[in-house]
Amino acid sequence: MRKVDLIVKAPHFFTMEGEGVGYKTGVAMVVDGGKIIAIAESELIEREYQAEEVLDLQHHAIFPGFIDAHMHTSLAILRGLAQDTSHWMMYGLQPFSAATTEDAALAGSKLAIIEAIKAGTTTLGDYSFNMDPVCSFIHKLGARGNITCTIREAKSRVYAPGELYEFDPARGEATLQANLELYDKWHNKGDGRIRVLFGPQGADFLSKELLLRVRQLAKERRTKIHMHTQQGDRETYQVVQRYGKRPIAWLQEIGYLDETLIAVHLTDATEEEARIVAESGASMIVCPGSIGIIDGIVPPSKAFQDAGGNVALGSDQAPGNNCHNIINEMKLVALFNKIKYQNPEVLPAWRALRMATIEGARAVGLGDLVGSLEVGKRADFIAIDLQKPTMMPVYTHPMRNIVPNLVYSARGNEVALVAVEGQVIYRDGVILTVDEEEILSAVAEYPDRIGQRATEQFLSINGTNAQFMRENRL
Amino acid sequence: MRKVDLIVKAPHFFTMEGEGVGYKTGVAMVVDGGKIIAIAESELIEREYQAEEVLDLQHHAIFPGFIDAHMHTSLAILRGLAQDTSHWMMYGLQPFSAATTEDAALAGSKLAIIEAIKAGTTTLGDYSFNMDPVCSFIHKLGARGNITCTIREAKSRVYAPGELYEFDPARGEATLQANLELYDKWHNKGDGRIRVLFGPQGADFLSKELLLRVRQLAKERRTKIHMHTQQGDRETYQVVQRYGKRPIAWLQEIGYLDETLIAVHLTDATEEEARIVAESGASMIVCPGSIGIIDGIVPPSKAFQDAGGNVALGSDQAPGNNCHNIINEMKLVALFNKIKYQNPEVLPAWRALRMATIEGARAVGLGDLVGSLEVGKRADFIAIDLQKPTMMPVYTHPMRNIVPNLVYSARGNEVALVAVEGQVIYRDGVILTVDEEEILSAVAEYPDRIGQRATEQFLSINGTNAQFMRENRL
Repeated sequence: MRKVDLIVKAPHFFTMEGEGVGYKTGVAMVVDGGKIIAIAESELIEREYQAEEVLDLQHHAIFPGFIDAHMHTSLAILRGLAQDTSHWMMYGLQPFSAATTEDAALAGSKLAIIEAIKAGTTTLGDYSFNMDPVCSFIHKLGARGNITCTIREAKSRVYAPGELYEFDPARGEATLQANLELYDKWHNKGDGRIRVLFGPQGADFLSKELLLRVRQLAKERRTKIHMHTQQGDRETYQVVQRYGKRPIAWLQEIGYLDETLIAVHLTDATEEEARIVAESGASMIVCPGSIGIIDGIVPPSKAFQDAGGNVALGSDQAPGNNCHNIINEMKLVALFNKIKYQNPEVLPAWRALRMATIEGARAVGLGDLVGSLEVGKRADFIAIDLQKPTMMPVYTHPMRNIVPNLVYSARGNEVALVAVEGQVIYRDGVILTVDEEEILSAVAEYPDRIGQRATEQFLSINGTNAQFMRENRL
Repeated sequence: MRKVDLIVKAPHFFTMEGEGVGYKTGVAMVVDGGKIIAIAESELIEREYQAEEVLDLQHHAIFPGFIDAHMHTSLAILRGLAQDTSHWMMYGLQPFSAATTEDAALAGSKLAIIEAIKAGTTTLGDYSFNMDPVCSFIHKLGARGNITCTIREAKSRVYAPGELYEFDPARGEATLQANLELYDKWHNKGDGRIRVLFGPQGADFLSKELLLRVRQLAKERRTKIHMHTQQGDRETYQVVQRYGKRPIAWLQEIGYLDETLIAVHLTDATEEEARIVAESGASMIVCPGSIGIIDGIVPPSKAFQDAGGNVALGSDQAPGNNCHNIINEMKLVALFNKIKYQNPEVLPAWRALRMATIEGARAVGLGDLVGSLEVGKRADFIAIDLQKPTMMPVYTHPMRNIVPNLVYSARGNEVALVAVEGQVIYRDGVILTVDEEEILSAVAEYPDRIGQRATEQFLSINGTNAQFMRENRL
């Protein structure tokens, strides 16, 4: 008998191997040293392996942990403060983001990450400026981080409509150096649980020279560029004014479209532009809930997939989604595309699940590590409790309904267990590796102070939400 | 001191009074004999009332219980078996619905109702043929039922495309009699908690004569007609073939459009047709998730509202949504309409909340009883736990974020307490009035038998989901 760390028993495994969902029953999974070393018939496993720990999940289905590929977790400290308005950033977010401090942002990140873990996310694709403490937290929590540091050359101020962003090369350099420092400190730390990507904020926010330097550095370090791409008409306007071309055409011209690029949003991209990006070998992240709320748009992720590209899902940020729950994003991406094409067969449940797992992992450069339950991969997995009403009843023939129920019915609290690299970090409502109560109660310190600092600007901007407050609609 | 049944204390009350959300703080609510008898300053309440029970909900927001206006709960026994296909009813549902027994359907109803209660629904707008045992269950559970019995004259068989439905007057008569019996037995029972409506299945499923008889009977009994209306191109085809007019024009011609009618879906209605229905005084129920999955369509509920009509939300059925969670429907109706009009200001969170509460109550004929927390109304209310990560942080100034967080972030498990007519029926994960464990475990008896009976037809129809099974995509 071979001694191993962990055996996982359950009646249903969705391994995501192959082109579908890789369903297996009558099997058990063996984990050792954080990796999956076998998935085979239960009897065989019991004969050959002796485990330190056995997870006997009798009424559960096992899935790979979900990939949330694009998050701005720090903004969770501003949840629910910026939706239902046009000009989201200027009229919604601005008064509150200007009033946020670094400690408040970190409290927000911890909140968002706990929220995400509880709905089955194991890989956190977080993206912001000050990522060192977030890496520390994810490391301590035992989750997987695919972390991006924002690189930005444009000065942060409110620009008048039609005004070109003003570049500050010193700011560009400083943010690039911060990204490099983060890379040197964290890339591949925690047995490879943390990866660091390069984060030019968008084609409109950096000069061509700095964009090209980032590209060179990312390639030298064999990591990815995670960039907002054609994320809205504001970006399109800036790039057209500056270079005479729409963003994707211009990025193609300067050689930015290739397998190093993870293009986020494509909100303002045509289907043809999406195809150009996909065919370049770049991948895409779509954030259905956030772009739905902020812009009322369904981005062209289907055209991207149809052209052979990998698309991951992202929850983006809590002021403008307003949650971090990939199960919700799976439902939204399926429904939004059915509606966009007025066709109920577009984007079935299993495809949405693939976006949250194997296709998502491939899109963000982690396809060799996670996203499916296969021998040799890291043991990032979750258990879904099939005795929650939303997952009932369970049919196995002539049709299995577990995947449709997960994608279209589950709320998040069906996630009974979350493990990363074979370590259980969440079980039965309790985060096991950090003090959830302490983290959540720390959040309550900030709203009062942020609210006070934001009041003057909130009232002077006098946007939709200020109006709603006056009308007792909030 | 006046002796009363219950005092509810909480830092936030969303009463839904007025045109907005009727927010109140520093108040408490007094309940006696199932009714709200006061909402006033906490100190005043403490001086004037002595309560049998005090609910001291220190980190909660109180809302009226949600109205789920249109449900086919019995179909929850078939959850997850019919989505992602065109011709939903024929290719998706048919093999399984034909294999369902009455006891299985009742087990499904109980499952769906428990699921709905746990996400804050207090009024269940259930609709099917055999509603007597469902009324008994809702009565025992202590929830509110707005129950409709299906009246159908068309024979239940698979019709070829283009074939007119065959009417069977005996069947029409029998189903009408069943509706009348249900009315006589249950209408206003349980201190008025159960209401019975008349349920002609649709303009295509009954002869003109029977439709008009139903109308007469509903008016005599001062109840509502709850009818699928222009619910799809199949209905439009049938009515155009039979009467030479589209359904809404024809219903208008025969005098069917007035305040007695609750028109469900309007999937195939134009915005102009929706306005005609709204202006007649009829109300509407929109089922965003179900129609999104089944048809890939966003029905014209906004046009209906813009014409002054009341619109309620419905979760419809679990094979084709696939859940009963009004919080989910609030998010979907807001996002779908933002996308439909490509405008993030369309259908803000507070309006979606009004659809789930006061506007929903008005739409289904219960506006005088429930839907808001006002003196004289029945005490149907829920408590949302603001210490769940999805509801955090809580801002109160310069903007309150509780409603946006409820509508766009909450999953369902933030509902900590559900009360109907002042009786707490759910608290902290536990249904208090029926044996949840027994009910849920009963559900597990059916899938095997239904699956076996459905197999031959499922394989011979060979729809999308049969194909997915062969390809290991489920």
